[in-house]
Amino acid sequence: MRYELYYWPTIQGRGEFVRLALAEAGAEYVDVARSKGGVSKMMAIIGGKGTRRPPFAPPFLKTGEFVVSHVANILMYLGQHHGLAPKTEGGRLWLHQLQLTVTDFVAEIHDTHHPLGPTLYYEDQRPAAKRRTDEFWTSRAPKFLGYFERLLAQNGPYVTGRKLTYIDLSLFQLVEGLRYAFPKRMKRLERKLPQLLALHGRVAARPRVKAYLASEQRIPFNEEGIFRRYEALDR
Amino acid sequence: MRYELYYWPTIQGRGEFVRLALAEAGAEYVDVARSKGGVSKMMAIIGGKGTRRPPFAPPFLKTGEFVVSHVANILMYLGQHHGLAPKTEGGRLWLHQLQLTVTDFVAEIHDTHHPLGPTLYYEDQRPAAKRRTDEFWTSRAPKFLGYFERLLAQNGPYVTGRKLTYIDLSLFQLVEGLRYAFPKRMKRLERKLPQLLALHGRVAARPRVKAYLASEQRIPFNEEGIFRRYEALDR
Repeated sequence: MRYELYYWPTIQGRGEFVRLALAEAGAEYVDVARSKGGVSKMMAIIGGKGTRRPPFAPPFLKTGEFVVSHVANILMYLGQHHGLAPKTEGGRLWLHQLQLTVTDFVAEIHDTHHPLGPTLYYEDQRPAAKRRTDEFWTSRAPKFLGYFERLLAQNGPYVTGRKLTYIDLSLFQLVEGLRYAFPKRMKRLERKLPQLLALHGRVAARPRVKAYLASEQRIPFNEEGIFRRYEALDR
Repeated sequence: MRYELYYWPTIQGRGEFVRLALAEAGAEYVDVARSKGGVSKMMAIIGGKGTRRPPFAPPFLKTGEFVVSHVANILMYLGQHHGLAPKTEGGRLWLHQLQLTVTDFVAEIHDTHHPLGPTLYYEDQRPAAKRRTDEFWTSRAPKFLGYFERLLAQNGPYVTGRKLTYIDLSLFQLVEGLRYAFPKRMKRLERKLPQLLALHGRVAARPRVKAYLASEQRIPFNEEGIFRRYEALDR
């Protein structure tokens, strides 16, 4: 069976957390919205076409049987079906809550450039974006990343222990994204995150991830996604 | 077995979505942080005391075996163990993604009074809060609530069909909270949400929910939680 992934075609965005898991799983999939007419197909499903369970927003994954939406939910599904998650109930709940912490963190990363709401342009909210970004790097990024740093120190080499799971792929992407968007600020914080950086290297070296990153499937970072490089916000 | 719920003792906040599910399930639980020394106990667990799986933040639920955190994750757990969720994989994934949409909506509601970040006071971000709140009521609230309105019209009387699940309890709480925080704005939007209002009434009338709402367990709304009534933001 070939999965169908639906996400905005020109950005990594939230979809990238799913693409990385699909790559590591070696799962076959079509990135539907990146082919002709794909965005219209995506919007039709959101509008309820062909399903009584329309997702609220991309990304979502069609599995043959289900339309699964929300990154953490898709990863929970893929984790269970492709060996990227523990098999016990306790292990699965633990891993899922770690991913939900990433979800919250991603929302806060997005809000650094969109503090006044997702429907206004960055250019219309620059002063607020500066204040929110300062606060983010003072209080929030150290707290979120420090949490995972501690777990890695306790459990390593991967966040939940000996085996890679989907949370490790997401943490890799967070490091990539923060390095892209805030090279100066991230460089300073990285001094306190040796375990996380080691994990980043470990994930980058996995053959399937490496091949994916070098392929055309990997969309370069740009100023439309979650991670945006704005000089004014990086100091 | 008696659950232990850990959440801030003086607010409904995110914990209230869990309290409502515990009430409807008729589950026995202690609201630990509301008794003497409870907040310290909560912070100790977050600090890693007695668990190798420390949650990032409240709310979290200690079952006999696990520490489960994040509202949507806790509800998924309770739903499965107390008949507040479907039994099939597809049904569970669908319900969970609806709850994750509520999670996103709750974060945006919080941001109406905290657009510059959760670590600053509202009083230090009033102009930004006004702009974000306007945007929220123009674009976001109609989109989120309209989504659930459509699902109710399609599936009713409950969001996923004939049976109440945990998402219905959360939607009840959203209506309660938005009515408290933004009485004028919500009143106008309610004209377009007849199904959601009917659901709100249906949930409020359920014997266990009704008893819970009338009890001292239900903390009144106030200006410390997610839903805050600030005159300046309601027009």
